[in-house]
Amino acid sequence: MAATQYPQALQHVMSFFSRLPGVGRRSAERLALAMMAWPEQQTEQFGQALLELKNKVRPCAVCGNYAEDELCAICQDPDRQRGVLCVVEQASQIIVLENSGSYKGLYHVLGGKLSPLSGKGPEELRIKELAVRLRQGEISEMIIATSPDVEGEATAHYLAQEFAALPMTITRIASGVPAGADLNFADAATITMALSGRHKL
Amino acid sequence: MAATQYPQALQHVMSFFSRLPGVGRRSAERLALAMMAWPEQQTEQFGQALLELKNKVRPCAVCGNYAEDELCAICQDPDRQRGVLCVVEQASQIIVLENSGSYKGLYHVLGGKLSPLSGKGPEELRIKELAVRLRQGEISEMIIATSPDVEGEATAHYLAQEFAALPMTITRIASGVPAGADLNFADAATITMALSGRHKL
Ligand SMILES: [Zn+2]
Ligand SMILES: [Zn+2]
Repeated sequence: MAATQYPQALQHVMSFFSRLPGVGRRSAERLALAMMAWPEQQTEQFGQALLELKNKVRPCAVCGNYAEDELCAICQDPDRQRGVLCVVEQASQIIVLENSGSYKGLYHVLGGKLSPLSGKGPEELRIKELAVRLRQGEISEMIIATSPDVEGEATAHYLAQEFAALPMTITRIASGVPAGADLNFADAATITMALSGRHKL
Repeated sequence: MAATQYPQALQHVMSFFSRLPGVGRRSAERLALAMMAWPEQQTEQFGQALLELKNKVRPCAVCGNYAEDELCAICQDPDRQRGVLCVVEQASQIIVLENSGSYKGLYHVLGGKLSPLSGKGPEELRIKELAVRLRQGEISEMIIATSPDVEGEATAHYLAQEFAALPMTITRIASGVPAGADLNFADAATITMALSGRHKL
């Protein structure tokens, strides 16, 4: 170890922090050093929580939401409207929609959006799984809630075309969500507006 | 699990992130969700790194710096000047001083500064350990590098009085470090200025 460096075990922790979005080298240092001042037990519990994260949280076998069991809490909930399906890019966006309190249907996580530039085509998204669900015939409305940016719009139009022949209404959330913004950062009021202003595609 | 909540294992990870300084509830959410997109192995390695952190990194038995062995790399280094001792508040500040490249002596970590308001007296700091080192008679200069704020100055003056009778020079780093600022955020040039402009107390 060079005299100017931190012990390896500490550098190791810093290197993981710095792989998180928005955490630069200095922030990673600050976070790891702050952790050095934690009670030993708390650091261990954090480590244990990370070890368990991937074991205990997995994608819902039906919708792709975060789940503790084979099915997520929403798919298991008998009180959800089973005729409405809201398509989102990421599981994290389900929480944003749920927090608005204005949606009581089911979800489907695409796992991204179409992006020709980065080579993300329909096969890379969970569209085959969506087709299986839609062909079961229980869904009367599919709300497409991809982000209102170029790729999100393209994805919405692709889905609308792909499933146009099915006997259901396809709608798109209104752009109450500021154009070009990430759905993750929309507040509850904006989400409510976007849902109530949805239109046919 | 309420439908609007994340799975428990994910909430658990979020709760640890939110205990880090400068990480609010939304940031903790963002960091934990970003980690969900990591390869499983990487999350496990991060968890393992945290479990090992406290086992592998401990305070140096002599100076209090972060160490992998009983003594830190600096105390073990035969090329350091053993007649100069720089007193800092925290181990993290040693790295700041080392990165300036302008100091080649030894260190002593106090573990804080005197703070009558929060009840931190001399007994709470590693002053007894400092006395033991100084009384061995090998130190000809003690540089006090506590932060240039009210408590850091008070600590410097306390140490200067406490060890005034010993046959050594006691100096204080110059306030090249902006007054009231935290030594952790000083750049190398400022640190170099502060060291070269040090004066007798
Ligand atoms: Zn589900
Ligand atoms: Zn040491």
